[in-house]
Amino acid sequence: MTHPTMLKVNGARLWTSLMDLARIGPTPKGGSCRLALTDLDTQGRDLVTGWMKEAGLDIRTDQIGNIIGRRAGQNPGLKPVAMGSHIDTQPTGGRFDGCYGVMAGLEVMRILNDHGVRTQAPLELMIWTNEEGARFAPAMMGSGVFCGAIPLQSALETVDRDGKTVGDELARSGYAGSLPVPGVLPDSYFEAHIEQGPVLEDERKVIGVVSGSLALRWYEITVTGNEAHAGPTPMHLRQDALFAATHLMQAVVRIARAHAPEGRGTVGIVDVRPGSPNVIPGTVRFTVDLRHEDPARLDDMDAQLKLACRQLSETVGYAVQASLKETWDFPATPFDAHCVGLVRDQAEARGYSHRDIVTGAGHDAVYMATVVPTAMVFVPCRDGISHNEAEYAEPEHLEAGANVLLGAVLARASACGLP
Amino acid sequence: MTHPTMLKVNGARLWTSLMDLARIGPTPKGGSCRLALTDLDTQGRDLVTGWMKEAGLDIRTDQIGNIIGRRAGQNPGLKPVAMGSHIDTQPTGGRFDGCYGVMAGLEVMRILNDHGVRTQAPLELMIWTNEEGARFAPAMMGSGVFCGAIPLQSALETVDRDGKTVGDELARSGYAGSLPVPGVLPDSYFEAHIEQGPVLEDERKVIGVVSGSLALRWYEITVTGNEAHAGPTPMHLRQDALFAATHLMQAVVRIARAHAPEGRGTVGIVDVRPGSPNVIPGTVRFTVDLRHEDPARLDDMDAQLKLACRQLSETVGYAVQASLKETWDFPATPFDAHCVGLVRDQAEARGYSHRDIVTGAGHDAVYMATVVPTAMVFVPCRDGISHNEAEYAEPEHLEAGANVLLGAVLARASACGLP
Repeated sequence: MTHPTMLKVNGARLWTSLMDLARIGPTPKGGSCRLALTDLDTQGRDLVTGWMKEAGLDIRTDQIGNIIGRRAGQNPGLKPVAMGSHIDTQPTGGRFDGCYGVMAGLEVMRILNDHGVRTQAPLELMIWTNEEGARFAPAMMGSGVFCGAIPLQSALETVDRDGKTVGDELARSGYAGSLPVPGVLPDSYFEAHIEQGPVLEDERKVIGVVSGSLALRWYEITVTGNEAHAGPTPMHLRQDALFAATHLMQAVVRIARAHAPEGRGTVGIVDVRPGSPNVIPGTVRFTVDLRHEDPARLDDMDAQLKLACRQLSETVGYAVQASLKETWDFPATPFDAHCVGLVRDQAEARGYSHRDIVTGAGHDAVYMATVVPTAMVFVPCRDGISHNEAEYAEPEHLEAGANVLLGAVLARASACGLP
Repeated sequence: MTHPTMLKVNGARLWTSLMDLARIGPTPKGGSCRLALTDLDTQGRDLVTGWMKEAGLDIRTDQIGNIIGRRAGQNPGLKPVAMGSHIDTQPTGGRFDGCYGVMAGLEVMRILNDHGVRTQAPLELMIWTNEEGARFAPAMMGSGVFCGAIPLQSALETVDRDGKTVGDELARSGYAGSLPVPGVLPDSYFEAHIEQGPVLEDERKVIGVVSGSLALRWYEITVTGNEAHAGPTPMHLRQDALFAATHLMQAVVRIARAHAPEGRGTVGIVDVRPGSPNVIPGTVRFTVDLRHEDPARLDDMDAQLKLACRQLSETVGYAVQASLKETWDFPATPFDAHCVGLVRDQAEARGYSHRDIVTGAGHDAVYMATVVPTAMVFVPCRDGISHNEAEYAEPEHLEAGANVLLGAVLARASACGLP
């Protein structure tokens, strides 16, 4: 028989399961809408847990509604090797973000059943509650509570726009479980995911070997000049807050480019006051998102941004004030060298083109990486688009990623063939 | 006796009248709120027309509510020399914008009475309806209707936010008159006004001899790039619409500066989509306001702006679209050389520092200049601020401007002394 580490998943079954799940909460342009803990999310959970039961998994839920499906191992004393992701979506989300990680993990369970493979360590498939944060902030709530980063009580008290709480909605869904949180930690955690960026597609790579997540800092900058009439005020007597602010916005991009390839700099929200066509703006407020894999280089980016703020009057040649407020600081999270190595080895052994990559987006794996050895497998998504109905991934790429997941998990779980 | 052209106004009386008017609709920080055709505007009209009657003026109103107070001349066959401005304000307006032109005209009438001076031509004092446009758009409505630029019917049908029409509110105020519009044109029109800009204060001049108004063009520019996640998208694979747009915003300022001193370029409204801290903007829409005294140079500015839009992808080094829509084109309006000369002569003869200046803001005089010989007298306002409770002008500057108005009007009306 095939050596278990070279088993292959059933790509067609994986695709069919993804498409079946996508039909719950379908959107007009081919995406899905299953906001966390809505009836549609519950219908999605019912569908997938039904499949998990058919695959023989023992299913339990914890106090924040995370679903854990266990496949027994030969050695019950070993801690389980876990896989997973989430099946809640953005309001006009796609069919792959999150769902792929869960379906790939399910496919691993199914193909092991097909081949009668029992692993030494047990395997677990996790469905994390409310990864998207689109209905209840913050994002990655279920994994955050599981890992002890978010207190259960504050998560349960989180309110949506209609005043409904996570606690009430979770109880209503029937998925409020008894397993305590923070949870009992598995041996390790593997998550397959679409890249949500354009790098793999651009470089024609099939597998992204994720080495960790970028560190991130958010800022709010306020530039204050002098509001005045556009007509009577000559150029040399203006203190135009917007013209000044554009220099800082460009500095954000320049600083990120100078820290390539992992530096990122984004201005996403801009508020110009008073906001009239014939009034020179007096105040401009905007957000800055800086990221880098290396904390020291992020510190350097931070210092350059603050310098640009201090020098702004000098840069533009008139008096203007730039005040910077830090609003969020999320550290870089390196993944586990051994688990990442298993992913890289599998991509190599199976002949898939691959590259190491860091994740710029948040994932449940980023929380898990703070408590257990963790790795992720990325596959390309078209045009780097996600959180969008247009999100798309090629079936053969999804199959390849699931094969890498399978191989890495089997290696970690010390697989051995059994009839 | 003093030669009438060297008569001087009573500056204290002028100031007191301005302050008395400002107490109708007072705002917390020392400004006024008399939105057009509100009860407070009507109270202001009642106060000022009372003063006009005390000064012996014959008062009539036209179909759009403009108030015309006439002081008879010696030669009833001559057309009147008109003065005036408006007394409606912005929601948090100042005490001088508009009111100064009316009060200065009233003071001219009063001082002629004090000295028993009768002019050859009759004199008229105009209070134009709804100059500000803050409640009912467009601005300069009364003078626009008087001059035939705005049809009466469309003005009367204009609706405010509460659904009330100009016609109904005018009838309610009691100031709907019978004089037909377009109106019977006077010989000429003189308007005193605060500068609403910083030039006179900056150059320590007391009088601005207004030679005309700037031509103006408004645009809406839409820059379209590619919306993407701030985290997973490296800098070299972005089509950041905002980074691109900042280059056009800077071009607006650069182009205006290259057409100094009369060139003006302002970006006032900016809308960045989708507007999330961690999403690279896909679309940026913003307004551009370009002005210049010289239509040929405005054409040149226009061409440079369009070129910057066409070259945007080249400038930023990635694919991005900039589409430009022209939304308004208002021609330059030169004032009458003879009337402007009278203003300049008076400033000179009375020993006031002065400079020629163009108005960048709209005024009733800009409409009047399209139909009769017109001039304006500017006086400095503190920090160039107007449309604001902080608006302020020095009493001695207001007095100087009224003296120039007095002398210019007397010269135009072929003054002769009389007991």
